[in-house]
Amino acid sequence: MNPISRRSILQSAGALWLGSGLRFANAAEARPRAVARLNHNENPFGPCDRARQALSNLEDVSWMYPFEQVPALRSMLAEHEGVRPENIYVSEGSGEVLKLAAIIYGEPGREVIAARPTFPMLPQYAERRGATVTWVDVNDRFDHDLAAMQAKVRDATSLIYICNPNNPTGTLTADGELRAFIHELSRRALIVVDEAYIDFAPEPRKASVIDLVKSGENVLVTRTFSKLYGLAGLRIGYGIGKVETIRRLESLRMSMPNQAGLAAARASLGDAAFYAEARKRAGECVKFVRGVFEELGIRYVPTHANFMMFDTRSESSDFLEFARERHVLIAPVGEPFSSWARVSMGRPEDMQSFANALRAFVRKV
Amino acid sequence: MNPISRRSILQSAGALWLGSGLRFANAAEARPRAVARLNHNENPFGPCDRARQALSNLEDVSWMYPFEQVPALRSMLAEHEGVRPENIYVSEGSGEVLKLAAIIYGEPGREVIAARPTFPMLPQYAERRGATVTWVDVNDRFDHDLAAMQAKVRDATSLIYICNPNNPTGTLTADGELRAFIHELSRRALIVVDEAYIDFAPEPRKASVIDLVKSGENVLVTRTFSKLYGLAGLRIGYGIGKVETIRRLESLRMSMPNQAGLAAARASLGDAAFYAEARKRAGECVKFVRGVFEELGIRYVPTHANFMMFDTRSESSDFLEFARERHVLIAPVGEPFSSWARVSMGRPEDMQSFANALRAFVRKV
Repeated sequence: MNPISRRSILQSAGALWLGSGLRFANAAEARPRAVARLNHNENPFGPCDRARQALSNLEDVSWMYPFEQVPALRSMLAEHEGVRPENIYVSEGSGEVLKLAAIIYGEPGREVIAARPTFPMLPQYAERRGATVTWVDVNDRFDHDLAAMQAKVRDATSLIYICNPNNPTGTLTADGELRAFIHELSRRALIVVDEAYIDFAPEPRKASVIDLVKSGENVLVTRTFSKLYGLAGLRIGYGIGKVETIRRLESLRMSMPNQAGLAAARASLGDAAFYAEARKRAGECVKFVRGVFEELGIRYVPTHANFMMFDTRSESSDFLEFARERHVLIAPVGEPFSSWARVSMGRPEDMQSFANALRAFVRKV
Repeated sequence: MNPISRRSILQSAGALWLGSGLRFANAAEARPRAVARLNHNENPFGPCDRARQALSNLEDVSWMYPFEQVPALRSMLAEHEGVRPENIYVSEGSGEVLKLAAIIYGEPGREVIAARPTFPMLPQYAERRGATVTWVDVNDRFDHDLAAMQAKVRDATSLIYICNPNNPTGTLTADGELRAFIHELSRRALIVVDEAYIDFAPEPRKASVIDLVKSGENVLVTRTFSKLYGLAGLRIGYGIGKVETIRRLESLRMSMPNQAGLAAARASLGDAAFYAEARKRAGECVKFVRGVFEELGIRYVPTHANFMMFDTRSESSDFLEFARERHVLIAPVGEPFSSWARVSMGRPEDMQSFANALRAFVRKV
């Protein structure tokens, strides 16, 4: 009954790939340029030039624990986001913050509320920790049903998870409604807002709820360099929350961020030209894919992220397999949308391969 | 009452450093070559040439989640250690395995046994999780007192932590005695053997207890690329244990290892020339430092690792501060050895700076 899982699906994609009998010394060999890797919501154009340059100087710091570099990035992030360093947890991707929040707030007897479908990492870890997860189906616009979620809040509710834009639906919950929801409920439970894809929203600063941290609401925002910034492989992200929340996370800190991710993140932050270019590329890609869906009469959800969810009109595994044979990797969406799939925005040639696979599939079915 | 903490001490060292008012764009700027960084047990010569080369190709993979690279390293490690891939957890340093073991086995009501002093990460996390930690003082050779530890085992005991060679004492517990201890007690509790420094032991393969994993004992061995391999900043390590133990760890997996660490680790593993050279360098360094201690009549513990513990003959903080003013960073040892300190083996010029600082301190006191 789990909806889409970034990790499990992509691990299985990796396993399939490994299972093909290939052995390789590095990923560049592993992935012929002909493979369209559209199942991980990554940025295949890679990081900005300054990050590339920072990575070329890794030798000097690779042997050193990052005791100086973590506070340095934290300070930069604090300035960038307009909060205090004490409001920031520098993490191994945003996943570490989601998992820690799940472990700390998801004790047995507690209840976590999450949308169905959404990125399931936090609710899954809360379940493993012993909490109950109440899944609330998205509404008919495939968006968080905030009213239905609110109706589920009980005394046992310790955490409400909102992924915004939501993975895998790509919907952006209207910021006014989300703010009202947080204002109403954050006295009763920690609201975790996963903003992994906020950089692709029409107005990221307006869509983000980081300002609610500043105004003292009980909200924890997670961010990552894995998506727009093209640094998924270097595992760097952060959480922004009240000082007390950050302290609780630090008390069970699981990771020590790595020098490569730290250096690349510091070099990336504030590169406005790169940021704008990455948004533009994703936007052009969305336009192209929407055109293909409309040409084929395929239902899709308008997206505010770097992926799109669409209806394959059969079990999605049929199309996933069909596409994989054509070296196009996409992701399933899971219950209750078993005929739907999710495609990441990639390079133009990747999207052409996707379009060709989809056209061939539609003709065949 | 906590003995030495790799993290807390070194964070405080970093904080001191940051506190000096310097601002810097990267660590190379942060650390003038004149600073002797001898407080983290790192390898300042850095990684092997093949790892350096692997790091120069990071751009191609930095945007990709490491779904293919983690199983690839796991397979290499399995072959290297003569176990099955299912016996291996590829981790963010070895710290992640220690913390996860603490969280999983350190539930309230359970008891963890550890030496005093030892590397305190696992016992600290077990305490935070709610377990009781029973600290057992090292014997008069500064070695694990296995008999005293065994005498503390009760029904509530869920985990026994052995760091071998032990940090900060540098002692190597005789492998025959350790094996007998594990054979006797691993039916009653998980024995975690932290082999972060085993690569510096006279005969690493003989000293390691990985073979006991193969023979089915309830033992979890942790290893890291942070020490001899010169990759502390890239956060890569592993745990080796029974399939059931590894599964339990995976169920709460906190990290996704990063492409830089994965690539460098794969390039480093099996580089026999580098391995021998790093051991030789550390050995020469130990010989030099031992000479300095003997020249000054300073008590020290014979070491089997890349650091040495010695008696400063005053509160160790006095010497730490004295040395820091001379750009020599070393680490305290903590209770019950408040006059002792720990110095890492570094570059010849680092050790000269250390020797000069120590000579000046001895003259002054």
